[in-house]
This record gives sequence, structure tokens and C-alpha cells, in this order.
Amino acid sequence: MAPLNPNLDHQSRPSRSDARSAADYVTGILDGNRVTLSQAITLLESTRPDHRDTARTVVEECLPHSGDSIRVAVTGVPGVGKSTFIEALGQRLVAAGRHLAVLTVDPSSERSKGSILGDKTRMGTLASEEDAFIRPSPTAGTLGGVAPRTREAILLCEAAGYDTVFVETVGVGQSEISVRSMVDFFLLLALAGAGDELQGIKRGIVEVADAIAITKADGDNRAPAKAARAEYEKALRLLSDPDSGWEPPVLTCSSQTGAGIDEVWGAVERYRAYTQETGFFEEQRRRQAQHWMEQAIEQRLHEEFFSDPDVQAARGDVEEALQDGRLSSLAAAERLLSIYRDSTS
Amino acid sequence: MAPLNPNLDHQSRPSRSDARSAADYVTGILDGNRVTLSQAITLLESTRPDHRDTARTVVEECLPHSGDSIRVAVTGVPGVGKSTFIEALGQRLVAAGRHLAVLTVDPSSERSKGSILGDKTRMGTLASEEDAFIRPSPTAGTLGGVAPRTREAILLCEAAGYDTVFVETVGVGQSEISVRSMVDFFLLLALAGAGDELQGIKRGIVEVADAIAITKADGDNRAPAKAARAEYEKALRLLSDPDSGWEPPVLTCSSQTGAGIDEVWGAVERYRAYTQETGFFEEQRRRQAQHWMEQAIEQRLHEEFFSDPDVQAARGDVEEALQDGRLSSLAAAERLLSIYRDSTS
Repeated sequence: MAPLNPNLDHQSRPSRSDARSAADYVTGILDGNRVTLSQAITLLESTRPDHRDTARTVVEECLPHSGDSIRVAVTGVPGVGKSTFIEALGQRLVAAGRHLAVLTVDPSSERSKGSILGDKTRMGTLASEEDAFIRPSPTAGTLGGVAPRTREAILLCEAAGYDTVFVETVGVGQSEISVRSMVDFFLLLALAGAGDELQGIKRGIVEVADAIAITKADGDNRAPAKAARAEYEKALRLLSDPDSGWEPPVLTCSSQTGAGIDEVWGAVERYRAYTQETGFFEEQRRRQAQHWMEQAIEQRLHEEFFSDPDVQAARGDVEEALQDGRLSSLAAAERLLSIYRDSTS
Repeated sequence: MAPLNPNLDHQSRPSRSDARSAADYVTGILDGNRVTLSQAITLLESTRPDHRDTARTVVEECLPHSGDSIRVAVTGVPGVGKSTFIEALGQRLVAAGRHLAVLTVDPSSERSKGSILGDKTRMGTLASEEDAFIRPSPTAGTLGGVAPRTREAILLCEAAGYDTVFVETVGVGQSEISVRSMVDFFLLLALAGAGDELQGIKRGIVEVADAIAITKADGDNRAPAKAARAEYEKALRLLSDPDSGWEPPVLTCSSQTGAGIDEVWGAVERYRAYTQETGFFEEQRRRQAQHWMEQAIEQRLHEEFFSDPDVQAARGDVEEALQDGRLSSLAAAERLLSIYRDSTS
């Protein structure tokens, strides 16, 4: 049965009898067909060798048509209001003629599919827009982790004509640092009340933000939001990166009243203009491409190493000796490396 | 010729005719012989296969005698006063009966040996103490980078009876994040005048600090130091790590007047007591041992991959295609991985 809502078709998986060719996917994507785009993203997650081959071809063929977008990570702890923020901002962007793709990276989706559907329901108004595409990002993949597949999903969205790509993540895990390496702009949403509510933000997240927006700055919360803004501004001054000329602004906004939402987007536009002028924009993308190539290589070498049967058989004893202080880290490494060498030669 | 100052013997290298056995090194180290300790640390840097074998044996034999110390990273930008701080604190620790080893990690030492000698001259008073051992950390090593060898040098210092190990780094590079993974406590020294002077601190450093000490808090600088302290306290509140119960304090001190120096050490002692009570201290060391084993494995796999002649021959073209957008990161990775597979099978 065809999905009623083209934005809710992410659960359609390529069936075992699905012999659709890479060319079919590519044609559909370049035509801007959302169902095909969504199915292609699903294909990225597949571990079946034939699917992997097809997915690889699809990505390669879409590659020349990708890149012409602004890639923005939107992150923040649960409860900060990411979905309502994206909905409020996204509707404005679509109304202004932009084509918006939203990829939601949700670590909890591996445990339960519920939260993603919840997110999608919350973004219901945006999801029904013709020019918006909302989808959970691939959560698995043979090259491990959420990151490589999400990066490819971005490329596919761009090839399908989306000029604005949001990657929504929950700002509490390791994935944000990976996500930083695949976007142009990293937006951190935060709540007023610096003490307790912010405890969930992972170390390292604030420091990689290109802008911070204090959400829910409406009603009685306007004054605390303003105070939080001042605190974050001071904090960012202490953390500023000498390598980059950009000074991350701290803003306040309300998805409910719409106040400040345009200003947040204004910061993204200013960042793009500034970094395109300095050449940092393109340079960062080039560095990211190199980074992901090396990451993919290291990931594969790692997987092959630790899935070697002889390494697996020896690993328990070696790690026990390491933890007991009978082997140093380096000696433990050499032990496993030599077992691997014998096993593969 | 024997060195005049036992603390200045780090330049003595094992000569080609040096047939000293691992057992000789181990005996000397366990006896607390500083010359032998220093020569053993030098041995860690050697790339000669026989030296590597000896070094590995020495580390393994010293391992059961290591671990009984507090390992403290002392970091901060050039000019913050790391050497004078270590000298001021070190003299107090030695006077209180502690045995202090200071390993200085200096990335510039690869370019010029001068800066290290400069550092050592600056720490002259401490260097002449019987119970203090000051040495540049190994800067090279077959397993790449400064980190693995520094970690082993810490173990050797502990086996030689040093119950307090400082690892001094320049807080502007990548090495600090590595160093974080080999110490129990990470102390960041910072200057008052949050605006300009701090620009050099690398992103991510503030967030991994277990304490921040504002240095040079004397004379007219006391008020600005106090103000800086308040700013950092606020910043750290925004950056606190939900995983750890420790709240990093911000302190002020003066190496010149001695004010606040004891309080900085008090924070280290409080941290140790607190984390030993919660079990975090040992847990962190166990995680670090596992981390360094995996790091060593990945480093070696990486080195073997990128030094493969066929990979080296193909790499230029592949990376050009990647940068031109003719290949995706993943496709570029697969290309090189398949070349490597053919080359090694």
C-alpha cells in the first residue's frame, strides 16, 4: 500500500524482490521524487551486498548534482524544542521559496521507533508542505555508526533539489561531534536557567557551535532567556576559536510567538556570506570530504581487525591482562596485532 | 662523559654499542636511579628494532610497580607561566615529602631543541632538588605521535618511585586532548583579561579541565584575576559534564608570591579523594588503558595502510577526484581499501 503521506514513507524498505536499478533511483531523485528519495535513503541502511552496491552507485551518480545547499545541524537536549523550532523556521523558509530537507538523527530510534514518529507528528504542519522533506536519518550501515550514512543522505537530498538541509540531533551524545564534520553551520538550541536544565549538554558541544539560540523566550520566560543569552555570550568569549574569524552569536527566540526566528536564520546567512568571502566555507567542505574518507578507511580497518576470528578468540584474555595490570596498553595492542598478522597472512 | 646535572641527561642516547639489557634498565629504574630512568625514557623514542624490543620489555617489567601516583596534566598557552607555576608548586610538594616527576610535552621540540632547554633552565631550582625529576617527554616513536610514549614514560617514572607525575603541555594543539586520556587530573592555567590573551586556548580544552587556575594573580593584576575567575566559573557552569559528579573549581594563584598555590594542589587532593570514593578514579584509569590499547592498534593499522606502496601510488589521484567532487568520501575510501586488499593479499 502506498503511504498516505509522502513524508511518512521512510518505513518502506526495499523488498527482497525489489530489483530496481540504480538508474531508476537516480532518475527519481533528480526528478525530485520524494518517495524515491526516501527509499534511496532507506537503501543506504541496508547491509545486503547487492543493496550496498546499488546504494554506492546511486550516491556516486548523484554526487555531481549535490553540494548546492546550506547544511545546518540543529541540536539541543530533549525538551529544548527542536521540533517546534524546526517547524517554525522551516515554514518561513518554505514560504520564502526554499526547499528544505530535515534529517533527524535519533539514537533512541535503535531502541524504539516511537520517538521518531513522535517527532514527525510534532512537525506535522511542516511535513505536509510540498517543499519540505522530513525523514529519520539512516541509523545503521556497514561502515558503522550513524554518521557516514547521514552524510550520504545529505548528498541525495541535495541532488533531489533541496537547497537547505537540516540535520537534527539530540545534543547529548557522541554523534554531535560527528555531525559537526558534515555540516556548514552548527546551531545549538539551549534553554534559559543555566543551572539545572543545561546539565544535559555534552562537553564539547558548546565549543563547536556557530550560534546558540535560547528557545522559549516568550511570556515570563523572556527575562531569564535574556540573562541566559548574556551568560552564553561571556562563555563563548572564553572559548573562541583562534582558527576561525567567525564569532558565534547568541540569540533568543520563540517558536510559539515567532519572535527571533528570522534572526536565527539571519545568523546562518551572515555566516555563509562571511565564510564564502573568506574561503572558509569551501575549505571546510574540502576538509570534511577528506576527513570522511579517512574515517571510512579507519572504520573499515577497525571492523576487519576486531571481527577476525583469532582476534576475537584472544581479545578477552588480553583485555583481562590489560585491566589487571599484567600487560601495558601497548603490549596488549602488539599482542593482538601479531595475532591478526598471523591470521591474515 | 657523565652529565654534570643528573636532570640534564636527557640528551644521552643509547649508543650503537650500548648492549645494556632490559634487566639493567629495570634494576636501575626500580632502584630510583635517575640517569637510568632518563636513558630508559630516551629508549622509548628509538626506532631501532632492538631498542624497541628492549623498551617493550622494560615497560612490561616496570608495569607491576607502576600506577601508585597521581597523574596531573598542567596546560596553558605560552606566557601563562607554566614553568614558574610548576617550579613553585613542585618545591612545595618536594618539601612536603613527595617525589615529583615532570614530563614536558613540547611540540616545538621537533623543530628546535632550544625551547626545552629553555624550560629546564627556567625550572632550575626545582631541577636541582633530589626528589624531583624533570625531563622532556619522548617526542617520537614508531607507534606515532607523542602520546603513547608519554604514557609509557609515566609508567617508568612511577616504577622509579615518583608518586606525583606532572605532564606539562602547551595548551594550543591537539596533544592536550590525547594527554587528557593519560592523566587523572587536567589542570588548565589561564590568564586574566578574558578578551585577547585567551584567544590561544584551543576549543575543547576548557571543557575537559578538572580545575582552572588564573595565574599571575599578584599586584595590580589581582582584581582582573578575580574577575576572570568569576567569568570562568560562569562558563564552566554552562559546560558541566553530566557524567561526572566533580565540579571543576576556578582558582587564582601567584607563582611569585606563592598565594593560592596550595589551594590549587588542594583541589587536586580533593578530586583524588572524591573520585576514589566514587570509584571514578580507578574506572577512568581502566578506560584509559583500554583506550590506549585501541589507539595503538588503530594507529598501527593506519600506518600500515598509508605506507603501503600501492596505496601511496594511488592516493594522489583518489584524493584529487574526491576534492573535485568526482568521488564521494565513501567511494574514495572503498577505492583505496580495495587497492590495499589487492596489495596485501
